[in-house]
Amino acid sequence: MADQFRASIVGGSGYTGGELLRLLVDHPQIDVTQITSRAKAGKFVHSAHPNLRGRTTLKFTTPDMVEPCDVLFLAQPHGVAAESIEEWRGKAEHIVDLSADFRLRSADAYRSWYGGDHANASWLERFTYGLPELHRDELREATLASGVGCNATATILALMPLAKSGLIERAVCDLKVGSSEGGAAASASSHHPERAGAVRSFAPVGHRHQAEVLQELGEFELHFSVTAIELVRGVLCTAHVTLTEDMEEKDVWRLYREFYGSEPFVRLVKERQGLHRFPDPKLLAGSNWCDVGFARDERTGRLVVISAIDNLVKGAAGSAVQAANLMLGIDEQTGLGFPGLHPI
Amino acid sequence: MADQFRASIVGGSGYTGGELLRLLVDHPQIDVTQITSRAKAGKFVHSAHPNLRGRTTLKFTTPDMVEPCDVLFLAQPHGVAAESIEEWRGKAEHIVDLSADFRLRSADAYRSWYGGDHANASWLERFTYGLPELHRDELREATLASGVGCNATATILALMPLAKSGLIERAVCDLKVGSSEGGAAASASSHHPERAGAVRSFAPVGHRHQAEVLQELGEFELHFSVTAIELVRGVLCTAHVTLTEDMEEKDVWRLYREFYGSEPFVRLVKERQGLHRFPDPKLLAGSNWCDVGFARDERTGRLVVISAIDNLVKGAAGSAVQAANLMLGIDEQTGLGFPGLHPI
Amino acid sequence: MADQFRASIVGGSGYTGGELLRLLVDHPQIDVTQITSRAKAGKFVHSAHPNLRGRTTLKFTTPDMVEPCDVLFLAQPHGVAAESIEEWRGKAEHIVDLSADFRLRSADAYRSWYGGDHANASWLERFTYGLPELHRDELREATLASGVGCNATATILALMPLAKSGLIERAVCDLKVGSSEGGAAASASSHHPERAGAVRSFAPVGHRHQAEVLQELGEFELHFSVTAIELVRGVLCTAHVTLTEDMEEKDVWRLYREFYGSEPFVRLVKERQGLHRFPDPKLLAGSNWCDVGFARDERTGRLVVISAIDNLVKGAAGSAVQAANLMLGIDEQTGLGFPGLHPI
Amino acid sequence: MADQFRASIVGGSGYTGGELLRLLVDHPQIDVTQITSRAKAGKFVHSAHPNLRGRTTLKFTTPDMVEPCDVLFLAQPHGVAAESIEEWRGKAEHIVDLSADFRLRSADAYRSWYGGDHANASWLERFTYGLPELHRDELREATLASGVGCNATATILALMPLAKSGLIERAVCDLKVGSSEGGAAASASSHHPERAGAVRSFAPVGHRHQAEVLQELGEFELHFSVTAIELVRGVLCTAHVTLTEDMEEKDVWRLYREFYGSEPFVRLVKERQGLHRFPDPKLLAGSNWCDVGFARDERTGRLVVISAIDNLVKGAAGSAVQAANLMLGIDEQTGLGFPGLHPI
Repeated sequence: MADQFRASIVGGSGYTGGELLRLLVDHPQIDVTQITSRAKAGKFVHSAHPNLRGRTTLKFTTPDMVEPCDVLFLAQPHGVAAESIEEWRGKAEHIVDLSADFRLRSADAYRSWYGGDHANASWLERFTYGLPELHRDELREATLASGVGCNATATILALMPLAKSGLIERAVCDLKVGSSEGGAAASASSHHPERAGAVRSFAPVGHRHQAEVLQELGEFELHFSVTAIELVRGVLCTAHVTLTEDMEEKDVWRLYREFYGSEPFVRLVKERQGLHRFPDPKLLAGSNWCDVGFARDERTGRLVVISAIDNLVKGAAGSAVQAANLMLGIDEQTGLGFPGLHPI
Repeated sequence: MADQFRASIVGGSGYTGGELLRLLVDHPQIDVTQITSRAKAGKFVHSAHPNLRGRTTLKFTTPDMVEPCDVLFLAQPHGVAAESIEEWRGKAEHIVDLSADFRLRSADAYRSWYGGDHANASWLERFTYGLPELHRDELREATLASGVGCNATATILALMPLAKSGLIERAVCDLKVGSSEGGAAASASSHHPERAGAVRSFAPVGHRHQAEVLQELGEFELHFSVTAIELVRGVLCTAHVTLTEDMEEKDVWRLYREFYGSEPFVRLVKERQGLHRFPDPKLLAGSNWCDVGFARDERTGRLVVISAIDNLVKGAAGSAVQAANLMLGIDEQTGLGFPGLHPI
Repeated sequence: MADQFRASIVGGSGYTGGELLRLLVDHPQIDVTQITSRAKAGKFVHSAHPNLRGRTTLKFTTPDMVEPCDVLFLAQPHGVAAESIEEWRGKAEHIVDLSADFRLRSADAYRSWYGGDHANASWLERFTYGLPELHRDELREATLASGVGCNATATILALMPLAKSGLIERAVCDLKVGSSEGGAAASASSHHPERAGAVRSFAPVGHRHQAEVLQELGEFELHFSVTAIELVRGVLCTAHVTLTEDMEEKDVWRLYREFYGSEPFVRLVKERQGLHRFPDPKLLAGSNWCDVGFARDERTGRLVVISAIDNLVKGAAGSAVQAANLMLGIDEQTGLGFPGLHPI
Repeated sequence: MADQFRASIVGGSGYTGGELLRLLVDHPQIDVTQITSRAKAGKFVHSAHPNLRGRTTLKFTTPDMVEPCDVLFLAQPHGVAAESIEEWRGKAEHIVDLSADFRLRSADAYRSWYGGDHANASWLERFTYGLPELHRDELREATLASGVGCNATATILALMPLAKSGLIERAVCDLKVGSSEGGAAASASSHHPERAGAVRSFAPVGHRHQAEVLQELGEFELHFSVTAIELVRGVLCTAHVTLTEDMEEKDVWRLYREFYGSEPFVRLVKERQGLHRFPDPKLLAGSNWCDVGFARDERTGRLVVISAIDNLVKGAAGSAVQAANLMLGIDEQTGLGFPGLHPI
């Protein structure tokens, strides 16, 4: 019989916490025994995550009640884990922190992008960036993994084969994203009459996820803009790439197949006809896929690489579960089988 | 080891066919070995159902190539199964027809609602209406089951406890539905610039699903209107019920709990506060839940019963799989565990 | 040369205040000289109403700065006008209050539906309900008019010909509404990831606008439910009417033509074919139309009357301008000519 | 009294034809006396343009019935005007062709981008590109004007100040567009269940509007991709510009003010805070505005210029009316005053 593991989710009332729990209630080897929320302590988790009504009878507990377990998922607001990581370390052999706190390895980079000193900068080096496509082997040995930035994930997986091959001179990454990226707390910017149908240039410059992209892919000329569109879940990354050397389509194909041919959650999507010629996050809600495709501009040689993910799954909770599976020695794909819906 | 069954899907390029396949690729005891589409014969199923790319390597075949199997799912346009049922009968011990052809038991009712004689009226009696909440025991013995109408399902499950208790004097059922109800074929009415954001009274009177409701629940004064709203998947039924005798809320609760307390796919949703006080199809995409709730109008005694489903799952493919599980002696819930997403 | 009037808008940072200003910037006889907002005093109005950037250089002022003018539009949160009406009375010969404070004539009815005593109940009698289709002649003489409830307006205009003819035994009014009904303030319920795509039964019973409907149309058995759908602007009222005597379609037509044939802002919409057979709020954004249509259920005799409006125009600011035009002796249609967009 | 002009619209059943008519029914100096549609000849125009019900009693006529008039708007499918321009020339002193047929001045460019020889290439030189911001003075003298490409318009107005000043080394233009760009004819790609919520890379490379951009702005390194998002009306252009020399924000401001300060339909939108810091097509439905804003990437020096339009107005019918006003000696802004709605 397969090993069983006990997990706790700290900061479980938000969207990534809820998505973690959604994935884990069907995970055959990981049991969530505790989930915390200060504001909702004592209430059933379905008060925050109504999709789970009838699927779990867990109630939220407070963080101080968390008991030792095999794996701890931290899904708190950015900045909280940085301050409390030492305490959590005592609770579990394996920790996956889904916040932005431990994604960067460099305290300088953290300061530069997050605007302040890291509360526990010495711990930065101890974490592994939790994207299995980049760090599968390290994750098998890791006890501390960071989660991934959703926009960073879409961008990294779009560009990785080119970047790792030294083929990118310049990449202009134009991301289109849904409203769930902003989290579960209401604000003026998420007010439905304003947000519905918006095409809002909320981060034309300066988005923090660039730091992760450059850390993980190495330096090249990266331009990065994020536009919020009418969508709840999903990211589309349109990466306009100037290559260091011109490549034909078939060579690009070969390169991407080489990198992703055996990846369980990356699909190459590039069709000559039909409605689904390129990746589209519409098809990926709830799934752990990252779809990647591309087109070559015959006129200019520019390569347009397109990737799509569900920001809450492959861009957050799904990659976290995939990383935890690796850390715990479980088959990497376990619990991540939902294929997505069509139409939706 | 559990029994394994071989299934084929006839008419597999549409939305219900695709949803059947989506459910069955993860079903541990039913293997889809063939799926047909005349128009797409020879192509990979992901050409029609892009969510299944990487999850199955099946290709569409033509209907004449269908081999004997354990269970046959017919998901053809309305009218086709009626004409060919005798042929299909030879192919499989168990058949579930998802079209409207065998939902009604009466040839007269069929003629009255569908505007023409049934091509094989003598077969009508041989089918069981495939809603487990109504016909669980018959389905365990059945070899022929009809699918269910999506709007009928939402309405039947909203009203069943009251109707079966003889408590309905009159019910005005006002349904709000998504665009996937119209199927996979494009038309002027589904053109995005027209359909997006529409609040379209497409069937204020005369909708055919009324016939199923009355057949299954017995006669009462039923009014039925369907409005298309901005939504792809989902049905919300708002049933304004005049009771034959006034009931307090707690008595309605008791009645619904009695009927649905042990139903695996019906949830009672009625909260005093929060965003999710009543059923909402938004939460049900991909799931086999039917959520049911209600409110009593203190001023008039009217009972407003509210139900929500995903029309392609509980209103079509999900109920079909649930019925097939019963027919094949498989645990009824098998393959239907996806809880839905939040947010979405 | 036509008379010119000076107007001020009190409470101008909300959606109805903004819509009033949008209509009045193009009104040839009414000039908005002041608009108030405590929170935004000193800022350009386009900071709250970005569509008006470049169309007006007005800045918000504080309520205490309001100078005497010809017509005062009060667009404050419910309850505020009731407390301050005496003060405002000194500022202008004509007042239109768009809040709910002066819609009901009866202090008892107010208490019953709004849950507390009215702060200036003796003023209730002095106001005219500002729906020109009901009170055109009174409005020509009035100096105090209330605005209208958006859901009430859709319902009243759907039912008025029948109600005024004593033909309604019972009406079940099922309304589908957009998110702008909730106003400009963000809240958990308007958070985009939750509200987008929702089909939310937010007022299955107990909605206050029923009081206006019954006051204006006289007593009959009224049932009333409101469901929030994916829509920003718009109301669709589906009124399921049991008539006191059966009517043929042509007689219903004749009745509605008689009532609405010369109404400048009511259109009868009932086509045998095409996409736009019945009213749809999608087509009415920005316009002052109320579209009304109907279908007769041949099986039961039920009449389904369908009406659609833009809640911020005909259901609020548009009717207010129409009423003000009448009060000031201006041609009723002035400033209300925008026909709506298609597609949108 | 102002001059009055008689207009006809050829090809009036599509979306641009309908939008032309919507603008012209309220135009005080241009009367539409005829509008053609072969398929809908004899029917009221509101059968195709339901927003105009009650605003015009025009019926569609056939193209051969068109009588001489002052200005002729051709709004036919691409390719038709090219074949019939000589005939139409005899009908009117002024012609505005909204199709793509006469936008390019070079027969070679036409062949290269449209894949075939132009049917009347000698006429290409006789047309003026109908964007007043570029060709105001020529339009005052012109008798033949082309309409503009919607995506081209957004891009041209985003880049014009920089391009005309020789400041663009490279521009990666990433456009997000609505479904009305595809016209009024339904197709598999516009089927609502597929198109709703899509983020579809329908033209990552090769979009024809590039040709207009380069013709009008002069040569520079242009990259151009178009992604269809959930939106009916609207274009957002995100132009990632590498400048030939670094510019500070205030210098960019100065340049754009210099070019657009007196333009009646271009607004500069760049705020430090609030929800509407940058242009958003959501606010522009029905209006003739082009909003333009920008942000400078401090890290790389990249300038992100953002522009938004309603594709059917400023990107088609609105610019056509603006051009016709100039050609006829009417005040340029006439009939184009609608400011747009908020919220919507």
